[in-house]
Amino acid sequence: MVSEIRLALVPPGRTWPRAGAVAVVDTLRATTTIAMLLAAGARAVIAADAERRARQLAAARRALLAGEVGGLPPPGFDLGNSPAAINPQALYGREVVLFTTNGTKALCAAAAVGPTIAAAAVNAAAAAAWLARAERVLIVCSGEAGGTAFALEDFATAAHLVQLLASANPGVRLDDAARLGLELPSPLRLVREAAHAADLTLLGLAADIETASRPDLTDVVPQVTAAGAGWARLEPTRA
Amino acid sequence: MVSEIRLALVPPGRTWPRAGAVAVVDTLRATTTIAMLLAAGARAVIAADAERRARQLAAARRALLAGEVGGLPPPGFDLGNSPAAINPQALYGREVVLFTTNGTKALCAAAAVGPTIAAAAVNAAAAAAWLARAERVLIVCSGEAGGTAFALEDFATAAHLVQLLASANPGVRLDDAARLGLELPSPLRLVREAAHAADLTLLGLAADIETASRPDLTDVVPQVTAAGAGWARLEPTRA
Repeated sequence: MVSEIRLALVPPGRTWPRAGAVAVVDTLRATTTIAMLLAAGARAVIAADAERRARQLAAARRALLAGEVGGLPPPGFDLGNSPAAINPQALYGREVVLFTTNGTKALCAAAAVGPTIAAAAVNAAAAAAWLARAERVLIVCSGEAGGTAFALEDFATAAHLVQLLASANPGVRLDDAARLGLELPSPLRLVREAAHAADLTLLGLAADIETASRPDLTDVVPQVTAAGAGWARLEPTRA
Repeated sequence: MVSEIRLALVPPGRTWPRAGAVAVVDTLRATTTIAMLLAAGARAVIAADAERRARQLAAARRALLAGEVGGLPPPGFDLGNSPAAINPQALYGREVVLFTTNGTKALCAAAAVGPTIAAAAVNAAAAAAWLARAERVLIVCSGEAGGTAFALEDFATAAHLVQLLASANPGVRLDDAARLGLELPSPLRLVREAAHAADLTLLGLAADIETASRPDLTDVVPQVTAAGAGWARLEPTRA
């Protein structure tokens, strides 16, 4: 039974609130991509907090190397960060090391705080069910610009999660940001209104916005099962 | 004609965006109080960024000393920070030095950036009309905990300002936070839902929440007319 939901509009700085379950949201696109990679059969996704570390991890583990800088895969990467361009045949049973500008950094930071999952619109209902096992829930928006700026698409998904959790847990305490999420009508429609959606469209990645806006494409919940300095390993669970 | 609106969910850190007009919002209660003090006849309000500086300024200028720490006036203060408890007879023609936990700090920081006003629900329409003279508008929520935490009551007023400005300026560019404000139905009703409203109610200050929730009690726009290290002088203008 959830008694408290806190919502961080950007990743907290040094001091993270305590929580029994943490959901990291990077709707466009890291947590969407992680959910879809695991749904497509990847064995694990290892989120890295720096491009260089991602390259080292992938080489050491003979894993696929995926991610983006400025929205596009850097030279030498096997895959980008496109949830709409996932090919299950290349993924089955493989590990994928993922580096992205905001989401994988937030996942690495959250993994040090408590039980952590990657949440997005595409796995929202399953993520909410997983979170509902804890008493104190923290939802963390990854934001833009390395986590320093607000991102509407992350708040949209976070608001959707708050609405799912609050309707199943009447009387739950909400902080001010979660309360705002509760009051926003049909939040997921705002994913495509975000400034970053316009950036992706200019890069020819509009299909990713479509995928990232669709609720409950999968019931896979990517859960952090191990973490170290600058990395967090996520494996598929279900709620 | 406004072409761009940016909304800071908490005061920016070191780097503030450029703007032709800045509105600082501390609905509960500093900017509400400033508007009501000037509407009641005070000649100027000098916002101070520290309690000690407020005491020094008030003594040096023979001004009234007003404000709060933990919601209540510290010992030796002439007035609290209560917009509902303003007595025009004591104020007419006087200067008031105001120190509060969040709003006066944000005002001092904003004053260094560009033309700045104090905005609240009580003067929202006049504040929006004043802002509409600029091309680039920045609305800054003062937040909680010294400006490090999101405050729903400030976002509520900021969203109301965005809605007024956007309806008068079709096609205006909005950043992600301003866009969220545009999408929030009837934002001012959320002032009383904020966590800080519950704190004030416990302190016996529920009347301040009522006052702070009411739109357009005055057409006074408190504008920064002078500023220095740790202080900003606001005088009444109209839009």
